[in-house]
Amino acid sequence: MKIGILGAGQLGRMLALDGFRLGHDFSLYDPNGKASAGVGTIYNDPDGLVLDIFLRQVDTITYEFEHLPLELVNQIARQKPVHPVPRALEVCQNRRHEKALFSELGIPTAAYHIATSAEELREAVERLDGPVVAKSVTEGYDGKGQAVIESPEDAAGAWDAIGHSEVVAEQFVDFKREVSIVAVRGSDDEIAFYPLAENIHHEGILRFSIAPAQKLAPGLEEEAQRMIRALMNELGYVGVLALELFDTGDGLMANEMAPRVHNSGHWTQNGATTSQFENHIRAVSGLPLGDTSAFAPTCMINVIGETGPVEKLLELPYTHLHLYGKSPKPGRKIGHINIRADSPEELRWRAMNTASLLPGCPDFEWRP
Amino acid sequence: MKIGILGAGQLGRMLALDGFRLGHDFSLYDPNGKASAGVGTIYNDPDGLVLDIFLRQVDTITYEFEHLPLELVNQIARQKPVHPVPRALEVCQNRRHEKALFSELGIPTAAYHIATSAEELREAVERLDGPVVAKSVTEGYDGKGQAVIESPEDAAGAWDAIGHSEVVAEQFVDFKREVSIVAVRGSDDEIAFYPLAENIHHEGILRFSIAPAQKLAPGLEEEAQRMIRALMNELGYVGVLALELFDTGDGLMANEMAPRVHNSGHWTQNGATTSQFENHIRAVSGLPLGDTSAFAPTCMINVIGETGPVEKLLELPYTHLHLYGKSPKPGRKIGHINIRADSPEELRWRAMNTASLLPGCPDFEWRP
Repeated sequence: MKIGILGAGQLGRMLALDGFRLGHDFSLYDPNGKASAGVGTIYNDPDGLVLDIFLRQVDTITYEFEHLPLELVNQIARQKPVHPVPRALEVCQNRRHEKALFSELGIPTAAYHIATSAEELREAVERLDGPVVAKSVTEGYDGKGQAVIESPEDAAGAWDAIGHSEVVAEQFVDFKREVSIVAVRGSDDEIAFYPLAENIHHEGILRFSIAPAQKLAPGLEEEAQRMIRALMNELGYVGVLALELFDTGDGLMANEMAPRVHNSGHWTQNGATTSQFENHIRAVSGLPLGDTSAFAPTCMINVIGETGPVEKLLELPYTHLHLYGKSPKPGRKIGHINIRADSPEELRWRAMNTASLLPGCPDFEWRP
Repeated sequence: MKIGILGAGQLGRMLALDGFRLGHDFSLYDPNGKASAGVGTIYNDPDGLVLDIFLRQVDTITYEFEHLPLELVNQIARQKPVHPVPRALEVCQNRRHEKALFSELGIPTAAYHIATSAEELREAVERLDGPVVAKSVTEGYDGKGQAVIESPEDAAGAWDAIGHSEVVAEQFVDFKREVSIVAVRGSDDEIAFYPLAENIHHEGILRFSIAPAQKLAPGLEEEAQRMIRALMNELGYVGVLALELFDTGDGLMANEMAPRVHNSGHWTQNGATTSQFENHIRAVSGLPLGDTSAFAPTCMINVIGETGPVEKLLELPYTHLHLYGKSPKPGRKIGHINIRADSPEELRWRAMNTASLLPGCPDFEWRP
């Protein structure tokens, strides 16, 4: 099957690298003209000149990022099958819609109010108890377009800093840790869940994912599965979906969802029987889903900005390096490393060693 | 680094698929103009028109098959580094040179004579005790250009059937089983060995590889390592080398070597910490070698001719499918399946189930 991917960054690259093994061919289409990591046939098309040619080359379409122009995706969906369903994009592009969907499906989230002016934002902060996280309703990711507001007087400054016409003000969730669930739904409605991952951020960017997450309270895994199953079934979703969650110590609270393969699922390349990338491609090409179980404790470490000495990383016998072919740039995700171990304790030491070789990487302070 | 691969079949494809993850770029050059499975930038160049363009695109060169015109490789080696060393090609293209090298290095092989006429072949059969395997000195692979001769009277017919001007007549080796060793030598002379695989052929084509090979006599693994180490050091080899061996029950006897990643090493994609493909690319790009240990008993099954129902294969939770994007054709290797298990006994059952789904695949009769 000839599969078209909208976007040609690292996620498109890794989808293609795993999807080639299923015998498929890949064409990657970048409407921003910034294809940075693609493998396969690349269409770099900021002016929309070769969209028709791209569409003629492919049997079905998927995407690697959610910040795609909706009109473009809807136009494409009139000509070729698009999975996941474009409505998933609509929901994920707008935190207001996302929150509403969570509420409809009984998925707990932080209390929130929508504000369309600095004054409304101040009122929202007053009504919500304690500190508030304000986020632009559209376009924010990796901590961009966000501000923490401690008291109502700070609302005006935060409003200006965010610089959007609509902002969601969320009650700050005092969580123990961040976890995420990645799941895949096939064209036959079958769903398979990866084990929960624990995610550690630094400067607003994911740095470490540890999977399977350790010491989960009883019932927590099933609760996360219930949430993501409800989302997938409601949307008639086909492909991989990720849901970021707060583990509050008293249950789970949804943060946000991503309608695609997800950074917190990269560990599956070396720690799960079937990677999230292969399973996404299996789903969108109508093939049966693969086994999602983890066969060893695994840690994913993002490589941000620069790699440092690649030789040193590769000398460690337990590192699986995944570079994206992107040029180094401060704050840019240019690769990741997967580490597998026989026990969580061994994993901790291996990840500590690896992290210490990466420039700008925070210490790995996780304990099993 | 930009790496050029001579050949664009499944081996080049899998080298590129793993090598992209190290951040390299790949250009595949097919001097036969039959690029059938390539990923990356493909140069299909039967008339040698774009060789210079290809060479300008790459920093270093490797190859995926040994039946390359030597003049071409030597010409290329004057312009760019070529690994493995072209002398390895010279040796592998000629069974006479290969046998001589084995003898020089104290690597046991079957007794043999070279024949350049039907009459000489008859004499050779007379001098060698018992049945004889006659092979063209050049160009034979996958059982082509070979004949088994039971008695001197059959020599003339075999000579005609082989149809070459020089034939090596080998004493038939009464072996218990076929095994192979795959090893990699880095640019710093470091060598890493994969565990021995047991190989099962059917109709002259490899069908199953099981690794690590079970029930090896004491010292056998070390003996295989000694042989391949001697070959690599003698040749100043950089990259992956494979050596096919007969396990006679009374030690090992070398059959032939292949100066490249090898079908009997495909299991490493899912059963070893670092695949043979990644290790070959690490070696030829000057990076440290990766861990070659096996982390589970693994079986590789070749998909020959046609896949049959891919859905059925993918429904089995333990199959790792690797298709090459080649069109089905009787006798053509179009993919393989790797299967991992917790024990050799479990592996046996899983491989039996999988083999039973593949059209034309013999029963899996291996026992641990």
